[in-house]
Amino acid sequence: MKTPVQPPDLDELKQRIRAFAFERGWERYHTPKNLAMALIGEAGELIERFQWLSPEESVHLNPERHEQVRQEIADVLIYLIRLADLLDIDLLQAAADKIELNGQKYPVEKARGNADKYSEL
Amino acid sequence: MKTPVQPPDLDELKQRIRAFAFERGWERYHTPKNLAMALIGEAGELIERFQWLSPEESVHLNPERHEQVRQEIADVLIYLIRLADLLDIDLLQAAADKIELNGQKYPVEKARGNADKYSEL
Amino acid sequence: MKTPVQPPDLDELKQRIRAFAFERGWERYHTPKNLAMALIGEAGELIERFQWLSPEESVHLNPERHEQVRQEIADVLIYLIRLADLLDIDLLQAAADKIELNGQKYPVEKARGNADKYSEL
Amino acid sequence: MKTPVQPPDLDELKQRIRAFAFERGWERYHTPKNLAMALIGEAGELIERFQWLSPEESVHLNPERHEQVRQEIADVLIYLIRLADLLDIDLLQAAADKIELNGQKYPVEKARGNADKYSEL
Repeated sequence: MKTPVQPPDLDELKQRIRAFAFERGWERYHTPKNLAMALIGEAGELIERFQWLSPEESVHLNPERHEQVRQEIADVLIYLIRLADLLDIDLLQAAADKIELNGQKYPVEKARGNADKYSEL
Repeated sequence: MKTPVQPPDLDELKQRIRAFAFERGWERYHTPKNLAMALIGEAGELIERFQWLSPEESVHLNPERHEQVRQEIADVLIYLIRLADLLDIDLLQAAADKIELNGQKYPVEKARGNADKYSEL
Repeated sequence: MKTPVQPPDLDELKQRIRAFAFERGWERYHTPKNLAMALIGEAGELIERFQWLSPEESVHLNPERHEQVRQEIADVLIYLIRLADLLDIDLLQAAADKIELNGQKYPVEKARGNADKYSEL
Repeated sequence: MKTPVQPPDLDELKQRIRAFAFERGWERYHTPKNLAMALIGEAGELIERFQWLSPEESVHLNPERHEQVRQEIADVLIYLIRLADLLDIDLLQAAADKIELNGQKYPVEKARGNADKYSEL
């Protein structure tokens, strides 16, 4: 399935997803509200691939499970790109800004000292 | 908050997220199983921003809501990047492959003819 | 499918779900962490039944869709009962306490006055 | 917080939740579509309580975490009751029917023989 050529960048994917929806007359269904639902639906399918695995097993997926997870991850990204497109959000910039914000929220010294309490952070 | 420079690409974000986890001693928490949970947790926060809005309202978010949504979208992407990193999945290629697969699953002619039944597709 | 007899109460359902897991040797998979995942996975399937419907359409489901939704709702409840059982939580009492707590959090006068801002509450 | 009296049954909770929404003028927000979103939003908050815990830790929650989980579980149940109410679904009967259906789907002999492959079932 993998092509030997360079994978497309996020912008190219955005264009393909736009075209996909347009060609099928699905644009009217693609409100941000509905897309947020579709996104979490796919995240739910992703969860189902992991729910009965131990944390260790989840690190070493067999090839079949790995491919299923790869497809669910792809579905989440597709809806994320589409949602960001409709709301005029630059995904990469948004993530970069959030990483910086998280850095202020969880300073290294405090986070390290409380590693055991990560779940409280 | 936004810097005038070019936003980083996915690869650069992956490196920053790796460093973020490493510096805080959080790597041991970052199993694929746990990250899938964190991802859907963020998707849940995204849903909460939309749940009482009409589909129309979700198209025209006020600036404050738009920024909240932008941050939740960023959080989803951050965990998606981290999860894909741990499972050695190329996000862009995975999405490109899935769009192609979806194209076979929902051929244009059939999809258009059943636009009203989109929810059944 | 519906039997003419009285439906079981929550306690009886809890016993049946216990037996179901025991008979299949599934108890070891049923940690609270895993059950919380299974629950949100089912909630994701529920979401998928509604995601492309307008709010109005979601009120008037056709019989087939209604039955699908009924089954997804049942799955969510089953995992909720199982999770509460393992954590020794009385579901009915927990809900009653939470309704009271929510009443303090959203007093009637304030909530009514801000109905348009429900999403901010 | 717990009262010494008998906890209410599901039907009594349904009435209280109805009154809660009515008194606050929130009925118009409570379409099945929106309630399915609110439900998964609460399920997401539940997931966040477990995401960094090991499966073992999730079995032995400290009192504070246990109370947080109890409240999230209550929130999920409250939205489940409300959603079922609006769609005229008898929660207990729906769960009883689904348990029976699941019994046909996963017969004991087959399930036991494949306990190690539970995740494939």
